[in-house]
Amino acid sequence: MTTAYPPSSRTTPSRTPDRVGYDRATVHAVLDEALVCHVGFVVDGRPVVLPQLHARVGEVLYLHGSTGARGMRAATGAGLDVCVTVTLLDGVVLARSQFNHSMNYRSVVAHGTATVVADATEKAQALDALVEAIAAGRVAGCRPPTRKEYAATTVLRLPLEEVSVKVRSGPPNDEDEDLGLPHWAGVLPLSTVAAAPVPSPDLEPGIAVPEHVRSWSRPVSG
Amino acid sequence: MTTAYPPSSRTTPSRTPDRVGYDRATVHAVLDEALVCHVGFVVDGRPVVLPQLHARVGEVLYLHGSTGARGMRAATGAGLDVCVTVTLLDGVVLARSQFNHSMNYRSVVAHGTATVVADATEKAQALDALVEAIAAGRVAGCRPPTRKEYAATTVLRLPLEEVSVKVRSGPPNDEDEDLGLPHWAGVLPLSTVAAAPVPSPDLEPGIAVPEHVRSWSRPVSG
Repeated sequence: MTTAYPPSSRTTPSRTPDRVGYDRATVHAVLDEALVCHVGFVVDGRPVVLPQLHARVGEVLYLHGSTGARGMRAATGAGLDVCVTVTLLDGVVLARSQFNHSMNYRSVVAHGTATVVADATEKAQALDALVEAIAAGRVAGCRPPTRKEYAATTVLRLPLEEVSVKVRSGPPNDEDEDLGLPHWAGVLPLSTVAAAPVPSPDLEPGIAVPEHVRSWSRPVSG
Repeated sequence: MTTAYPPSSRTTPSRTPDRVGYDRATVHAVLDEALVCHVGFVVDGRPVVLPQLHARVGEVLYLHGSTGARGMRAATGAGLDVCVTVTLLDGVVLARSQFNHSMNYRSVVAHGTATVVADATEKAQALDALVEAIAAGRVAGCRPPTRKEYAATTVLRLPLEEVSVKVRSGPPNDEDEDLGLPHWAGVLPLSTVAAAPVPSPDLEPGIAVPEHVRSWSRPVSG
């Protein structure tokens, strides 16, 4: 396997091509850091975009959630054409000119056909991965699914084949003639942070906050 | 105008209907807090989802960005069928059971036809709104667009008519029989925060960080 996804007509940009890449490691890092993806599909010729939880295992992206939702049921047959997009915001880019304002971000777009995971072993691994994706270490800290819960969950599988990543980083790109203007310019770095854990109101006394909750962070360090 | 968007077949959920609403004020708050939206449209019968900047002005959502992008050019004609989805993540929901893990979130889905803004006054107001949407107060702190920059920017207009908002909040919904398990359960509240502003390397000495940058926050307070 090469270190990059092969570009396709759909993943070759018509603008700002310098910001688009296909490096697998970069794509993986964005998918793994993001807590949510946006899944697009077509219903009666019109677009639908829904937020979903996702988890990457190697070169497969698993999607969890609204498979009962209108339109996504098509995935139980031959599969569902999807576009899965993940966006991480890294900063607000404040330029001297209104025109050059922007965001720093990393965004992955994956095209393909999503199908329902039927294999029992793969489904169990995918469900574990989906929980680990929102809180690393959590699978060992909670009750595994019962047979009934297992059957009540649908997982979709999207092979990562037609994928690109777009990145903007660094300071504003101001015009030379704007550099002398009296306006402050720079970047406000953004991050997603967790506040102190809030225990369930019905939590039994004496159950301490476990390490995997106390050390939760995005991206997962180490 | 009523206080809620009228439900349509597309905005009436087929599952978890208790989490879906149509209240305009709730929808507006989510759109205004979010820094980015995901715009879905159809190209050659297949879905495309791209991140875009947006700004709401009353009951209109303005979209900025990749109108040069493949497919979005259709908006220059009769308009482009889009689904615009905005998701704010409020927390990781850690249940006793793997099955009941979830996220707390607020997500808006808007369906409609996006068209290019042609009216000069509306376009100027939309461009201001797009900058204010990422940093309130910024329009007064930077150089306005030149005639050339103005012409080089395309803004799409989506009337907010067919819109819903889905919200999950609060503690995990554990099964009664799981309450005695020795697993910690609760919520990790999430927020997007800005670190200290990073000045452009080419910033003239003596230009202080302005108040609208120093006090940047999400959601905008006050």
